[in-house]
Amino acid sequence: MINAPSPIFSSPLYLSGASISDFGELWDRSLESLIEHVIEESLRTAQLEKKDIDAVVVANMSAGQFEGQSHLGALVSSMFPQFPPAIRVEGACASGGLALLTAEQYILSGTYQRVLVIGAEKMTDVSAQETTDILAGASHVIEESLATFPALYALLAKEHMREYGTTRENLVSIAVKNHHHAMNNPHAQFHKEITIEDVLKSPMVADPLRLLDCSPISDGASAVVISSDSHRAQARIAGFGHAQDSLTLAGRSSLTSFEATSRATKQALSRTEAKIAEFDAYELHDCFTIAEIFAIEDIGLCKKGASQAYIENHSDKLNKSGGLKGCGHPVGATGVKQVAFLAQQIELGIIERGFAQNIGGAGATAVVHCVEPAKVNENKGIVKNTRIKKSEKK
Amino acid sequence: MINAPSPIFSSPLYLSGASISDFGELWDRSLESLIEHVIEESLRTAQLEKKDIDAVVVANMSAGQFEGQSHLGALVSSMFPQFPPAIRVEGACASGGLALLTAEQYILSGTYQRVLVIGAEKMTDVSAQETTDILAGASHVIEESLATFPALYALLAKEHMREYGTTRENLVSIAVKNHHHAMNNPHAQFHKEITIEDVLKSPMVADPLRLLDCSPISDGASAVVISSDSHRAQARIAGFGHAQDSLTLAGRSSLTSFEATSRATKQALSRTEAKIAEFDAYELHDCFTIAEIFAIEDIGLCKKGASQAYIENHSDKLNKSGGLKGCGHPVGATGVKQVAFLAQQIELGIIERGFAQNIGGAGATAVVHCVEPAKVNENKGIVKNTRIKKSEKK
Repeated sequence: MINAPSPIFSSPLYLSGASISDFGELWDRSLESLIEHVIEESLRTAQLEKKDIDAVVVANMSAGQFEGQSHLGALVSSMFPQFPPAIRVEGACASGGLALLTAEQYILSGTYQRVLVIGAEKMTDVSAQETTDILAGASHVIEESLATFPALYALLAKEHMREYGTTRENLVSIAVKNHHHAMNNPHAQFHKEITIEDVLKSPMVADPLRLLDCSPISDGASAVVISSDSHRAQARIAGFGHAQDSLTLAGRSSLTSFEATSRATKQALSRTEAKIAEFDAYELHDCFTIAEIFAIEDIGLCKKGASQAYIENHSDKLNKSGGLKGCGHPVGATGVKQVAFLAQQIELGIIERGFAQNIGGAGATAVVHCVEPAKVNENKGIVKNTRIKKSEKK
Repeated sequence: MINAPSPIFSSPLYLSGASISDFGELWDRSLESLIEHVIEESLRTAQLEKKDIDAVVVANMSAGQFEGQSHLGALVSSMFPQFPPAIRVEGACASGGLALLTAEQYILSGTYQRVLVIGAEKMTDVSAQETTDILAGASHVIEESLATFPALYALLAKEHMREYGTTRENLVSIAVKNHHHAMNNPHAQFHKEITIEDVLKSPMVADPLRLLDCSPISDGASAVVISSDSHRAQARIAGFGHAQDSLTLAGRSSLTSFEATSRATKQALSRTEAKIAEFDAYELHDCFTIAEIFAIEDIGLCKKGASQAYIENHSDKLNKSGGLKGCGHPVGATGVKQVAFLAQQIELGIIERGFAQNIGGAGATAVVHCVEPAKVNENKGIVKNTRIKKSEKK
């Protein structure tokens, strides 16, 4: 399939200005004001000015439906005096991860040096029913639109329970853990510990998933600068991966794993030479509790069906931000927030290496990032080869 | 602002498999079937198989609103057995141009070798009023949403008339010319010559723009393969440019030109070393007749206010496809179709070099491409420097 020799890159992808707004039901904030906030915060943290930004990539799933506003690239570019080139990228709940990937391509191609990536979504200004309908657009609307997302994930949960003996308690432990982690995140939507009992008593949404198995509907934004120069950068992207699977569950080869997650992870790891167990923090896409179990297994932290023991022994490493469940899930913001959070943790010296997994729909799109310190061991781990080896392609 | 030396690239961006569906009111076709059609046609023309495609970029403005379907990247990826990485890109009516740019970055970065770019929009399944509302999302909805797009362009037309003495007849001549060109395009929405009288008698939409000054509401799709290898390629991207301006007209420094078009054109030309007058065909974004006058002047074919004489002498070069007015304007497809059309014209030996200008909203986003033969003079004109010289930045 590929005839030409793989080009070798040594371009670094430095991260600075990681910024995360409060996540939650922010009825006093507009989409624009959330974006303006993270731009300001990001540039202040990075010690950059607006004029230093060469291009902007905006991640957003559905502002067209939530508030009739398309053309967000131009909207955000208009917040800068020089009107930098800007683009909006969408891949449902993986929009944020895809926006980071797009910015990385801009830099690795040599077209731009400093790209501001913004993820944002304002979801709480419409009814919960409207939001559910809009989010259903992340599935195949003609073939699967009778099922809501909780129903699709409920089906996956049941399959996982049947095949691996996963229990309701296993699912619940994810929700309890992520609410616990969110207590330490000032931007999180929830600052409330929950118990196993709370989850088991919460209203049923789609059997076996109850309300507290589901990530909330959220407003929020996040931003980070990706740059080829190391100005103020304490972290960098050391690896990225992007894979897809069938949009419909009917087209999948498995209903107990997300193959796109596994393939994206292999790509990212092959770029860094890191092993999956070597990260100190894993931001995983827990839109539902079952999704974190899938993620832990599919990125390769443990064998299929063995996540419970892994979670018990490594609770502190899994979704330290609170994840989507505890921190909130403004869909376009989530993928950017995962990487921004890891960059902040590295800057604070809390972790050395972080891993982020962001998916769209029921795992049809998967984007994975490895985040490492900018300055330690400069010759090792820089993105060396952006093209994946043949053997790792499906 | 930029400290590091500019990297020099010699990566070619070859074009093959240019495909354009019929444009029109295609009530018997779904968005998916249009996309499937151009994928099949594109691969057949390029003599490639689905498995040869490394990644897919989809341009679409508003499938979320038109049919509740987001996550088009995953939808299209699912049409391929290997589920290639896929992304959707949006910049209102410039979505197609931005998707081409994104694919170019993927290739110039070395991440992928063969990227299929698809532009598609299905607009006629909702009422004209709903379509008008959805398209208004390309403007700043809070600040300008009381104005429809015809109203915004009517304002620009009046300003141009006032400042340069542009007449109704000047506008009309664009519509007559583009309907005439569309007679030769089998995929065009309209195969009907119109007269000056027809335009002047058509219903008023927003003074001075009448119905026949406006591009139609259309369904359609287009695709092209961008590749770093020259397999079956007869054309290539020799230059690209991307610039923005204020999303609101109130924020512009001029209401009689689109500065983003001028800046994007300068970028693209600086990459090819071609002069603007040296192209044989110009595909220009004539969403309204006044927009083609802006385009002719803003890309630099003539001085401001002098377009009428230019059009009279170069009618055959301007929107040979019929443009948006005669060929139709399925918004996500248009930017891809412009470049696909030029690649086809080069393959057929009708033109040697083509130029495409694609804008979003009322010119807030501008994307420009220079298309040249793949094989003539291999050492000249290859994209050499993707970064723009400082002097050409605003």
